[in-house]
Amino acid sequence: MFNSFELRAFGTSTSIPLPLLVNVAISVGAYYVGQSLIPRMKTMFLSANLAGVDMNKKSKAKIPEALGVVTGCIFLVSLFLFIPVPFMGSFSKNDLEEFPHDKFVEFIAAMLSICCMILLGFADDVLNLRWRDKLYLPTVASLPLLMVYYTNFNSTTIILPRIVSQFLGMSVNIGVLYYVYMGMLAVFCTNAINILAGINGLETCQSLVIAGSIVVFNLVEILSGRCREEYEFSLYIMLPYIGSTLALWKYNRYPSQVFVGDTFNYLSGMTFAVVGILGHFSKTVLLFFIPQIINFVYSVPQLFRFIPCPRHRLPKYDPASDLLHCSKTQFRVGDLNVLGRVCFAVFRTLRLIRCEESEDGVVSCNNFTIINFAILLTGPIREDRLNRLLVVFQVVCSLFAFAIRYPLAHYFYDTIN
Amino acid sequence: MFNSFELRAFGTSTSIPLPLLVNVAISVGAYYVGQSLIPRMKTMFLSANLAGVDMNKKSKAKIPEALGVVTGCIFLVSLFLFIPVPFMGSFSKNDLEEFPHDKFVEFIAAMLSICCMILLGFADDVLNLRWRDKLYLPTVASLPLLMVYYTNFNSTTIILPRIVSQFLGMSVNIGVLYYVYMGMLAVFCTNAINILAGINGLETCQSLVIAGSIVVFNLVEILSGRCREEYEFSLYIMLPYIGSTLALWKYNRYPSQVFVGDTFNYLSGMTFAVVGILGHFSKTVLLFFIPQIINFVYSVPQLFRFIPCPRHRLPKYDPASDLLHCSKTQFRVGDLNVLGRVCFAVFRTLRLIRCEESEDGVVSCNNFTIINFAILLTGPIREDRLNRLLVVFQVVCSLFAFAIRYPLAHYFYDTIN
Repeated sequence: MFNSFELRAFGTSTSIPLPLLVNVAISVGAYYVGQSLIPRMKTMFLSANLAGVDMNKKSKAKIPEALGVVTGCIFLVSLFLFIPVPFMGSFSKNDLEEFPHDKFVEFIAAMLSICCMILLGFADDVLNLRWRDKLYLPTVASLPLLMVYYTNFNSTTIILPRIVSQFLGMSVNIGVLYYVYMGMLAVFCTNAINILAGINGLETCQSLVIAGSIVVFNLVEILSGRCREEYEFSLYIMLPYIGSTLALWKYNRYPSQVFVGDTFNYLSGMTFAVVGILGHFSKTVLLFFIPQIINFVYSVPQLFRFIPCPRHRLPKYDPASDLLHCSKTQFRVGDLNVLGRVCFAVFRTLRLIRCEESEDGVVSCNNFTIINFAILLTGPIREDRLNRLLVVFQVVCSLFAFAIRYPLAHYFYDTIN
Repeated sequence: MFNSFELRAFGTSTSIPLPLLVNVAISVGAYYVGQSLIPRMKTMFLSANLAGVDMNKKSKAKIPEALGVVTGCIFLVSLFLFIPVPFMGSFSKNDLEEFPHDKFVEFIAAMLSICCMILLGFADDVLNLRWRDKLYLPTVASLPLLMVYYTNFNSTTIILPRIVSQFLGMSVNIGVLYYVYMGMLAVFCTNAINILAGINGLETCQSLVIAGSIVVFNLVEILSGRCREEYEFSLYIMLPYIGSTLALWKYNRYPSQVFVGDTFNYLSGMTFAVVGILGHFSKTVLLFFIPQIINFVYSVPQLFRFIPCPRHRLPKYDPASDLLHCSKTQFRVGDLNVLGRVCFAVFRTLRLIRCEESEDGVVSCNNFTIINFAILLTGPIREDRLNRLLVVFQVVCSLFAFAIRYPLAHYFYDTIN
């Protein structure tokens, strides 16, 4: 469908679709709008008491919070303005009978899920929702997405690695379980970014690396001539996302002038889930989430309360040296339940945590996040350096993801996709 | 499409579509969820400082505000859960090629527009947006709606009344102006309810009367066998709306335990615009807005600042008598511009305002809202009685609207839709 609007660029055989050019222009526009709007909105957020103290600074100034909602609105408006473009060719035909409603509904459903998550995130920032709301509301928000997947693709077959396919055949149809997996993907993506957060610029940077990786992946696939339509759909959503997020990053980077809020994390997670599901590359999206997955697995003992979890697990700031130290949790091994003791023993043996035991048996050990783990490795560190380290880790993981996706996948699988 | 899922009820020839029964069940569920959720959310709103003082009460207690967002979320979730139902028949067919994507996209686009307005309304409640944002954001939010209208109907022909059709023909195609009209309809509906507000229960009551009128109109049309599909679409959206709004009304009625906020007004306005546009009866929807239109026209001199407009135009509360009095605006006729003087002279001559002029030439006259006008007619009045009076007026106007829509329309037009 999209191919019919191609422009021959520079008189060569490489053709750039016109909608993509418009999309790039809109994305650049989104960046500039964000850049000028965010600083002007700051006082509005401060007077609405949407603000928090930056714990890792000497000044303890109040920083406006939840600015992700501005980015979200700019992103949504960009998509609103863009949607008609890829369908222009179908509009100009006199016969609207042939209008590709099935492609159109993908855009609308994508925007609906993203809009719902912005609303949920903003409500969370303002009202401090309970944990369980954060789990079931993304599931509900992904329902239209799953319906579109059902009506447009309904492919619930997964291709098996060679080692398994000897016994079970090339592929297996997991049916409804595939929908459960996609619903959980939305919940995972929205929350995974949210728990790897808390130092200046980390939320925006990790999201930008993931988004950039998705764009590179899409371009590679388009240039190699595979499934053009779906990867173009993904690009049309990712580029405005990157444009509006870059503007937010500009003010969120160290030292932060604004905080992004849960709004931004939810919106980002849902955007990645949306392109993964409707673009048919949800497993590849998950590969770009390796640091978040590691952080989640590492956090499990605290998230599920096997090990006591303080309300905040951010690194501890030392105003004298301006450096961040590990934050700690304290407990007695005797007070832990069986799972807690097992986790503690395993993590300790694998040297994933560092503990000190006082004479009266109170164990003091670092909180289970990869942010604290990074500080274990480096020693006390400045906030901007810590952020840079974690971003480099995210980039390295993305490169690793590409290595798995391309060369290694050919080793494990007979066919890709 | 919907007809294929009908149930023969009670063995008679009257058939009730199964989706409608499910929709009614979901709407009743929405009511009960709202009824139990709203009081439990109150403290959350109070601690987020989303609260306001009820100016028309002696106690001056803080009342949680913007609870419309809870109603909005319940309404959205109801729609999310309902969407698959009317398409069940198409799912079970093995051939998804024939899936009615065009009907499906109507639901998704409707929900997208409504979700955007909830987000905008909530952002307005929290951040106090500027006036112009309230005008252009609903326009943007209605874009997907207009695109769906374009791809599914693209009928921009309006039928002319007999008196004009002698000269211009039976109908005239107004082309792109029809889209401008629909975009403005969304802006009008969202803001019209917002400016007829300010006394306990008025927002919810007027919305319920309008919603009820739409439901009655849809049922009449369905029973008379006209355009079944579109009116069913409207019912599927209006019934969950009524269910969730009734729960809100229970706590918003005099004396209010919660305030609804701009969120509710925007959400309601957009819901009415959505069913009007996609159900093809936008002019009939406008007929149910007669009190809001009268209020808007009456307010024009103040809205456009021809006459000085204080920030709030609510009636003035007298704690001694527990009665509401007209609120007033003060100005010197000499300070008004030409339009202001014309408006003032016309309104005064038509006895639409009551003024007193002091010796030094300062005119003191009631604010230009039909709420104040009602108090002019009745004299000082208790808040709940004033609300009842305005609701009765809304009901009378709806009856009048039906009178125009049915008997009178046959007199003016040769054919009805």
